[in-house]
Amino acid sequence: MLFLARMDVQFPAHLSTGEVARMQGLEKEYSQTLQREGQLVSIWRVVGEYANYSVFDVGSNDELHQILSGFPMYPFMKIKVTPLAKHPNSIR
Amino acid sequence: MLFLARMDVQFPAHLSTGEVARMQGLEKEYSQTLQREGQLVSIWRVVGEYANYSVFDVGSNDELHQILSGFPMYPFMKIKVTPLAKHPNSIR
Amino acid sequence: MLFLARMDVQFPAHLSTGEVARMQGLEKEYSQTLQREGQLVSIWRVVGEYANYSVFDVGSNDELHQILSGFPMYPFMKIKVTPLAKHPNSIR
Amino acid sequence: MLFLARMDVQFPAHLSTGEVARMQGLEKEYSQTLQREGQLVSIWRVVGEYANYSVFDVGSNDELHQILSGFPMYPFMKIKVTPLAKHPNSIR
Amino acid sequence: MLFLARMDVQFPAHLSTGEVARMQGLEKEYSQTLQREGQLVSIWRVVGEYANYSVFDVGSNDELHQILSGFPMYPFMKIKVTPLAKHPNSIR
Amino acid sequence: MLFLARMDVQFPAHLSTGEVARMQGLEKEYSQTLQREGQLVSIWRVVGEYANYSVFDVGSNDELHQILSGFPMYPFMKIKVTPLAKHPNSIR
Amino acid sequence: MLFLARMDVQFPAHLSTGEVARMQGLEKEYSQTLQREGQLVSIWRVVGEYANYSVFDVGSNDELHQILSGFPMYPFMKIKVTPLAKHPNSIR
Amino acid sequence: MLFLARMDVQFPAHLSTGEVARMQGLEKEYSQTLQREGQLVSIWRVVGEYANYSVFDVGSNDELHQILSGFPMYPFMKIKVTPLAKHPNSIR
Amino acid sequence: MLFLARMDVQFPAHLSTGEVARMQGLEKEYSQTLQREGQLVSIWRVVGEYANYSVFDVGSNDELHQILSGFPMYPFMKIKVTPLAKHPNSIR
Amino acid sequence: MLFLARMDVQFPAHLSTGEVARMQGLEKEYSQTLQREGQLVSIWRVVGEYANYSVFDVGSNDELHQILSGFPMYPFMKIKVTPLAKHPNSIR
Repeated sequence: MLFLARMDVQFPAHLSTGEVARMQGLEKEYSQTLQREGQLVSIWRVVGEYANYSVFDVGSNDELHQILSGFPMYPFMKIKVTPLAKHPNSIR
Repeated sequence: MLFLARMDVQFPAHLSTGEVARMQGLEKEYSQTLQREGQLVSIWRVVGEYANYSVFDVGSNDELHQILSGFPMYPFMKIKVTPLAKHPNSIR
Repeated sequence: MLFLARMDVQFPAHLSTGEVARMQGLEKEYSQTLQREGQLVSIWRVVGEYANYSVFDVGSNDELHQILSGFPMYPFMKIKVTPLAKHPNSIR
Repeated sequence: MLFLARMDVQFPAHLSTGEVARMQGLEKEYSQTLQREGQLVSIWRVVGEYANYSVFDVGSNDELHQILSGFPMYPFMKIKVTPLAKHPNSIR
Repeated sequence: MLFLARMDVQFPAHLSTGEVARMQGLEKEYSQTLQREGQLVSIWRVVGEYANYSVFDVGSNDELHQILSGFPMYPFMKIKVTPLAKHPNSIR
Repeated sequence: MLFLARMDVQFPAHLSTGEVARMQGLEKEYSQTLQREGQLVSIWRVVGEYANYSVFDVGSNDELHQILSGFPMYPFMKIKVTPLAKHPNSIR
Repeated sequence: MLFLARMDVQFPAHLSTGEVARMQGLEKEYSQTLQREGQLVSIWRVVGEYANYSVFDVGSNDELHQILSGFPMYPFMKIKVTPLAKHPNSIR
Repeated sequence: MLFLARMDVQFPAHLSTGEVARMQGLEKEYSQTLQREGQLVSIWRVVGEYANYSVFDVGSNDELHQILSGFPMYPFMKIKVTPLAKHPNSIR
Repeated sequence: MLFLARMDVQFPAHLSTGEVARMQGLEKEYSQTLQREGQLVSIWRVVGEYANYSVFDVGSNDELHQILSGFPMYPFMKIKVTPLAKHPNSIR
Repeated sequence: MLFLARMDVQFPAHLSTGEVARMQGLEKEYSQTLQREGQLVSIWRVVGEYANYSVFDVGSNDELHQILSGFPMYPFMKIKVTPLAKHPNSIR
């Protein structure tokens, strides 16, 4: 079951460069585990913005929320989720 | 080069059911040709809306506009295009 | 799996009172079947608006889209879907 | 009398993890009391957001405001209330 | 129990001047009955707009919806309802 | 001459509980003086929000601005003013 | 007492060129009478839009609404009114 | 003096294909004359939309409005104008 | 050449009352010089808001930007500029 | 391949005047290098705002994101990118 998520990152001003870098490292690890395990199907950077569009393939809404709220940078992200269905014109 | 497009369809009230069906047929054909030729990578229905999210893989902005404006239902669609870049956390 | 949908109805000007009444009749039947079968858990009127909030319990995004696009008044509704997850404070 | 409320939480940057946890504990207690006493009928997490949709069943606007402003996290929530009425198609 | 409603009127283009005048007559009658019976406490014109702000005093959401949907011009109005509570600084 | 004002309060994070309480006290006094003198006709709490709708009866725009900017909490309020006129259906 | 109004014109599709021209003629006459009598202090075209910003000098909200609703093109205009007060830095 | 304009085209449903084509022909002629005479410096299509961004170089606001309102498709365009100034980092 | 500007002031929380007062003093001086020299034709307070509408008469966009960015409170203002043209109904 | 970018600058309150000046210096250098090398074709100040519109000529979305995220002030800018295509009426 597919969902499109747009995720915008906004760090608070008081975070040090080191804290940011450490979180970005954890984020990368978490993100790549999700990709290898198949829940995170695609992730793209929005050109010119600290934001991404991601496609998730999960079994339920609860699983998706658990995954999203598990992102190390979750407290600093604004996420909008769009449920996707099969398109009648899709050949896949 | 990837682009995300959200396409919302809005037919004018005066179109007959037959005209709509005919255009939907042409649309399917056009869409599937694009998918087979690789410019249209993914297309998903937005749940509950006459709209889709699509991912295009094209060589230039001009090629993308040519493709989008060639959709049979182009005059009845509102399209918003977002340019995508490789995400540093992507493993693909 | 639960989803909240807000559905706003907007009939085109050219529909006769009879056509509207006929569609509302079909809508009621369809809605009540969904309620009896358990996919439509709750439906409330938004006070002062030709709109409703509805809670759906379905197995997948595709099932939800099939249900929503099957409403007799679907062509005249603007629907926004929000995926819901279990709240940690919920006692149910 | 039913009301739908969307509640978005936004903690100020200066709150410590401990203060947040303490408030979330009080919030849970308060929320579950309301649920057991019947004023808070349903509460769901919005997938991917620190937000909930809740359905309240109260006797008056004043009672609802008293309940909402009594939430321990009320100062850090943005709440939008929608009054609901019985839907003509509802079988309940 | 008080509610503030903003009501914006938008007649479709095809209505004749006579039909509009007839509906405005019915509207006046309906509105003044509500005022005399106490459910419609205040009604003001928004300067420069075909719109009003109205204060309703009703016993329930269902009663309010029944009143609002009974306005002769209801099909041509966009209504937004805000539930009001007693203000702690009010001397009334 | 009547005006509707919506006033949303937003205290900055650095204000102490004591400062807030002191300002709320001054606010109450100021508000009740205005009510007793007739310039502030009505004030209601918006359910679930730190906001109010108020109706002012003043002789001029300048008088209204003087009154509004005199509120002790003025620096922490976002105010939107709507000029009101007599409604043709009003019986008052 | 001064008010700023932004007025956007939108003619319905069914109006003939002749009807539009006739209304524009009446509009000009009405507008210039208001200017000569001093209620309409300034009127400017918004560059690139069928819209104007106008400054009105009137004795009351009711007078302003009477003036605005008297514009021959009033049914085809969307008007937003902003009440103005003397600015402390103004030398006039 | 430079201005950026975004121009969105929206033809009414009743225009025939022939009328549209005729207007597009006149539009092209008008646009190219402006380009050759130097008032229209650049014009680009917005990818996926019946819209353009254009840069105008004119002597005054009045000249710009005269040019914009002279476009054959002006009645069917929504135009937003942004005045531009020299950027301190520009090397031109 | 006329421009309408709406200017909204928002001081950061860390500014002392003294710093604010000092800047308001400089602002007044700067504003009144502009008025005496004719570039600032009118300035009005928006009722209930820390904002103004101002009309500027300048020779070019660059001159207007230089004037606006020269306001002592410029770093704390959000400014929106609308270019104005002569209105065909204006008698001035 | 052309893109229009609107870039709005917003420095956090804690930056010193010196830090801001240093970053503006680096920004100028970076911007002028891009202009000399042809990727940044035009850059204009938006009148009255700390913002610019820029036109970029790049080979791909990835190149554009690399350029934009390389701006020294990138962490303090909100950027919106619009892909541009050749306009059929353009003579260039």
